[in-house]
Amino acid sequence: MEDDFSKALRQTAELMDRELREFLPLNEGLERQLYEAMRYSVLSGGKRLRALLVIQAADLFSVPRLHSTRVASAIEMVHSYSLIHDDLPCMDDDDLRRGLPTVHRKFDEATAVLAGDALQSLAFEIIANAKTHSSAEVRIKLAGSLAQAIGARGMVGGQTMDMYAGDDDIDIVTITRLQQMKTGALITFACEAGAILGHASPPQQQALKAYAHDLGLAFQIADDILDAEGSPEEMGKATGKDAAAGKATFVSLMGLEEARIHAAMLVDQAIKHLEIFGPKADLLRHAARFAIERRN
Amino acid sequence: MEDDFSKALRQTAELMDRELREFLPLNEGLERQLYEAMRYSVLSGGKRLRALLVIQAADLFSVPRLHSTRVASAIEMVHSYSLIHDDLPCMDDDDLRRGLPTVHRKFDEATAVLAGDALQSLAFEIIANAKTHSSAEVRIKLAGSLAQAIGARGMVGGQTMDMYAGDDDIDIVTITRLQQMKTGALITFACEAGAILGHASPPQQQALKAYAHDLGLAFQIADDILDAEGSPEEMGKATGKDAAAGKATFVSLMGLEEARIHAAMLVDQAIKHLEIFGPKADLLRHAARFAIERRN
Repeated sequence: MEDDFSKALRQTAELMDRELREFLPLNEGLERQLYEAMRYSVLSGGKRLRALLVIQAADLFSVPRLHSTRVASAIEMVHSYSLIHDDLPCMDDDDLRRGLPTVHRKFDEATAVLAGDALQSLAFEIIANAKTHSSAEVRIKLAGSLAQAIGARGMVGGQTMDMYAGDDDIDIVTITRLQQMKTGALITFACEAGAILGHASPPQQQALKAYAHDLGLAFQIADDILDAEGSPEEMGKATGKDAAAGKATFVSLMGLEEARIHAAMLVDQAIKHLEIFGPKADLLRHAARFAIERRN
Repeated sequence: MEDDFSKALRQTAELMDRELREFLPLNEGLERQLYEAMRYSVLSGGKRLRALLVIQAADLFSVPRLHSTRVASAIEMVHSYSLIHDDLPCMDDDDLRRGLPTVHRKFDEATAVLAGDALQSLAFEIIANAKTHSSAEVRIKLAGSLAQAIGARGMVGGQTMDMYAGDDDIDIVTITRLQQMKTGALITFACEAGAILGHASPPQQQALKAYAHDLGLAFQIADDILDAEGSPEEMGKATGKDAAAGKATFVSLMGLEEARIHAAMLVDQAIKHLEIFGPKADLLRHAARFAIERRN
């Protein structure tokens, strides 16, 4: 039987597919390939975990779903853009993503670069244009936080570290910082967005931030475990690449068993941060457990 | 002797170099290459014409320079990002830009993709964070307009058309639309930004938009003429590539003489749109003439 969290995740995915489609029209002009690539990437499934975090965090403050799904759409656009660029031949050079050819394989490299670029700006456009949903103050705060989560101190900085980190440079402290930027920044923004939309009090903001911080790290450790253990079939993408490339991961640095223990501890810690929200935060608690229990 | 416009352009360039440097710190972490590439691209000269347009358009409404230079910085970041990505091997494959190696030649492709990505988000961050300068309403309006100027209906859409337009598809109408997106959208945003910062009246907004529209097109026709006639030394980049690739340009479609006449007509038209601003708009008038008289 489907539990509450699986149901919420499925419903979020369905909702997001409808929402995202609205923002991604088709186009018959010379630029049609750009539109096709954007749709192809954004609508090719994905767990929609970041969208769920936005919506559930906003739900804590009874923010209308109409508002939070807007921001959830923006964050999924950014997530898609980052996957497209990370998969490029000059970066991780991946052929497969969610069981389908990556954007540069399905189309070409130029289209992949451009689709990523356009998805980044589309995210800001969606936030800026949500006039009937949120005040200018809320929207500009969201835009600023999102920009920071993407840039040199966030996702892009983390991906750069990941590309240029020789193994000698990498210890647990460094990889933790790297991953907090590379995957953690956007997950933290997802929870922060809920707090911004909901005009959370400073202790509430702090609690959500701490939750997101631990969740993001647990999520990445679980990713490293899945990459070491999972099959390409289950994962829908190549696995074992990091180990083959002799690249440092939480698993290579801590060992599988230790990594598992560390991730579980982080999840417990993440859940503890939610105490002040009471039972309203149950789905966020499940989300934290899901981060380390998922199979892909 | 230096005329008023040359002086304004030089002063804008000096001002922008100082401003932009502030936003581009160095970094000694594993991600230092990203920071270096961002600085390298943004601070490698450039005419700063877009910055000048923002500042001069804002000056019409006596907007404090402190406010308009912020937005000018953001637009120069976006312009740099677009040049970095356009120069990539999978796009225009250029080795030289402003007389220097392009970012992917100086660093590598991954760094070029990432530096472009981070410059886009930095532009939005700069606008969002200009709290002491402009109201949330003004900032979110700027962010929304900038996002639209970048995305699939703007610069990125235009670049896509340019990449995938077979020659058979291209006539004057199509290339005009393509260039209005590829280079026109950001130039239009520059003038629009001045109007937003200055709370311009609808007729004033309209006048600036019409001016930007004609100026942007004249600028691009002049670019095509320079590409056909200029030397790589003067231009600081490869020239004659479009002709060699058999690519349609205003020059290939109209011939040199006709292109020159058309550009001059557009400049006259652009200047006419500025009538309602009186002598205050003289530098913008000069900017329009500069668009077709420049040698690079």
